[in-house]
Amino acid sequence: MSTTTLLLQLIVILTTARVCGWLLKHLGQPSVVGEMAAGMVLGPVVMGALFPGVHAELFSKASLGGLTSLSTVGLVLFMFVIGLELRPQQGVRQQVRAAGFVGLLSIAAPLVMGLAIAPVLHPALAPAGVGFWPFALFIGAALSITAFPVMARILKDRGQAGTPFGQLSLSAAAVVDAFAWVLLALVVAMAGTGEGYPGLLKISVGVVVLLAVVYLVLKPAYAWLLRTRAPDGEPSATVLAALMIGLLACSLATEWVHLHAVFGAFLFGTCLPRDDRLLGSLAERIEPLSIVVLMPLFFALAGLNTSASAFSGASLGAMGLIFAVAAIGKIAGGAAGARLAGYDWRDSLATGALMNARGLMELIVIKVGYDAGLIGPELFTMLLVMALVTTAMTGPLMTLIAGRAKTVPVTEAAPST
Amino acid sequence: MSTTTLLLQLIVILTTARVCGWLLKHLGQPSVVGEMAAGMVLGPVVMGALFPGVHAELFSKASLGGLTSLSTVGLVLFMFVIGLELRPQQGVRQQVRAAGFVGLLSIAAPLVMGLAIAPVLHPALAPAGVGFWPFALFIGAALSITAFPVMARILKDRGQAGTPFGQLSLSAAAVVDAFAWVLLALVVAMAGTGEGYPGLLKISVGVVVLLAVVYLVLKPAYAWLLRTRAPDGEPSATVLAALMIGLLACSLATEWVHLHAVFGAFLFGTCLPRDDRLLGSLAERIEPLSIVVLMPLFFALAGLNTSASAFSGASLGAMGLIFAVAAIGKIAGGAAGARLAGYDWRDSLATGALMNARGLMELIVIKVGYDAGLIGPELFTMLLVMALVTTAMTGPLMTLIAGRAKTVPVTEAAPST
Repeated sequence: MSTTTLLLQLIVILTTARVCGWLLKHLGQPSVVGEMAAGMVLGPVVMGALFPGVHAELFSKASLGGLTSLSTVGLVLFMFVIGLELRPQQGVRQQVRAAGFVGLLSIAAPLVMGLAIAPVLHPALAPAGVGFWPFALFIGAALSITAFPVMARILKDRGQAGTPFGQLSLSAAAVVDAFAWVLLALVVAMAGTGEGYPGLLKISVGVVVLLAVVYLVLKPAYAWLLRTRAPDGEPSATVLAALMIGLLACSLATEWVHLHAVFGAFLFGTCLPRDDRLLGSLAERIEPLSIVVLMPLFFALAGLNTSASAFSGASLGAMGLIFAVAAIGKIAGGAAGARLAGYDWRDSLATGALMNARGLMELIVIKVGYDAGLIGPELFTMLLVMALVTTAMTGPLMTLIAGRAKTVPVTEAAPST
Repeated sequence: MSTTTLLLQLIVILTTARVCGWLLKHLGQPSVVGEMAAGMVLGPVVMGALFPGVHAELFSKASLGGLTSLSTVGLVLFMFVIGLELRPQQGVRQQVRAAGFVGLLSIAAPLVMGLAIAPVLHPALAPAGVGFWPFALFIGAALSITAFPVMARILKDRGQAGTPFGQLSLSAAAVVDAFAWVLLALVVAMAGTGEGYPGLLKISVGVVVLLAVVYLVLKPAYAWLLRTRAPDGEPSATVLAALMIGLLACSLATEWVHLHAVFGAFLFGTCLPRDDRLLGSLAERIEPLSIVVLMPLFFALAGLNTSASAFSGASLGAMGLIFAVAAIGKIAGGAAGARLAGYDWRDSLATGALMNARGLMELIVIKVGYDAGLIGPELFTMLLVMALVTTAMTGPLMTLIAGRAKTVPVTEAAPST
């Protein structure tokens, strides 16, 4: 893999991502939707079909190692900032029950519906040798993902982050994330290690040990480091390096216990002190490069895994089915949960619509499933399209249900649950 | 190349870099010296000798693609910021002649001395098939490098950036950089393309076209973009992406004309408006990750190319010879140039000592030569050690010659040349 190829790949990917982001921004979409679309455009479905020769040469299999490494680092940095930004929001304690309801039902509905359609999908779309249950559970897990960061971004863009349904959805998304990731990890581990329950046990022990190390050792150690060496919240190069080393070590640890590196990165972010100045200065140092330069690479690599055959004949039917189940399951499940917790219909439906945004998280999930051999290129494509469309529909749906910029602080407006 | 390996490599490299940086900082060295030393430590000479099994597994040839890509991106970003920071300093116009003298003599002396020792080095150390002249010219070019950024850092750390010799050295280093890089590119192109003079002509035409495009098209285009879209010097994600795309395109263009990507990155940096706020906000967004995370990877990769055989018997003699020629040629050449331009002995010697800092730039040069097949692992090692020692000796030498923190503004103290 030459420097020339890598530079050319980076130029093409960044340019496409910005152009698509710019186009879709004019349709009122968050930039992540444009970047996801850019990934599709760079894949075999669009660029590969229009310029097969150029595409085959620019993105040859042998040349993707560099992009993959850069995108891995980007993903780890991205998830770290997401973890860092996660904090108990005002009013969250009152919302624990409500968030639990929404989280549980917005997982259960698409999960059960996913299991229900799995018998239809398995014969035609499962790779050879993948048993029914790992496949079905993966489909269920993939449909039950909610994208915390995209949701946060959409709410922020619309000025609705402080609304009751905004706060409820953010809390519920955290519940969903934790649950769906664990489910996904279990499925992948079951299928991937081929060890069945002993494998699961090993993973569970690994996760418990990791959680103990992160929260009982790293948390106080880094709190001390930051208090003594960066009291103003401005980490020096040495402190930044120490943070990066901790981040990479946690990512590595989750890889070791058969979870994905992104999980450890997120976990490490959550263990740092909730300090606004620290968050601000770290985000300032990390986000520009990781979001502008590195994340588009991840989307492009996802797009390269897609297959044009997903867009023909019977496959289109399967894609429609997957999309319908994903959207209906999430929105209905989320809305039912909020309603049960005492929110009115409007807020409940808004919550359901927000839970339906899958964004980047879904891409990470289907990449994990693809890497583990649980799905092939065709189903990967269908799930990617589903992720793109469910994310893109969130904004318009929210406008329909809740209008724009209704900013009632949650502490005043939360129902007395 | 798995995610696990990449994460492990990153952890080991970052940790070693910080530990070595910390140790050498206590000896009064700039952190770059520590990071260069960390590269050596991670190579076959130290870690490979102490833990051969671990070393072979962790840094297997097949696993280095990810690190290489990350380090390429780091290098490009680093050189971009260096270019961005380059600006006509106060008093530079008065110093053009002096900087010319110092630059010329501090190139000529080590270059001629390098050519003189090349007949001694060629039989034993040139790779099979490399002719005498490309080899000799490369040695000359490699010895005549001066590291602008390390010099700037040393002067800043010592509070001597505003002194006459500080200003003179910085200006002269820019002259040396331009000349030595062009010389290097010519040598590599001659040897690499095997086309001799037609190859040189092609490169020269390419460079002229590139300079025209960068200064006549990109310079006004980006000035307009930054004026209209980032009037406060705070680039949005879109503007940052546009900058990254321009940066990558210039890097790619220099690769195409057989110069190295770093040259285009530097060039692009120099074409942006000299705006302190822009420089500040870009440096803030780019430097933390590129310097803390990515540059150590470059040093580690350099260290992996070293060979323990450079430290035995006759090779030690050759290494001593190379070091002596490099140091004496640079210091004497630089001092003679300053003296000719009318500076006193103290300032002249200080200037010579500063010109002798080769730092990171030398590593880039020897990597280029190594990649082009002009030198083998043994000579690579000798030149790397030379770079490390000449850089490390700059600080102590400066203390000896000029003391610390003598801050006479150049406009008051510059000789009337």
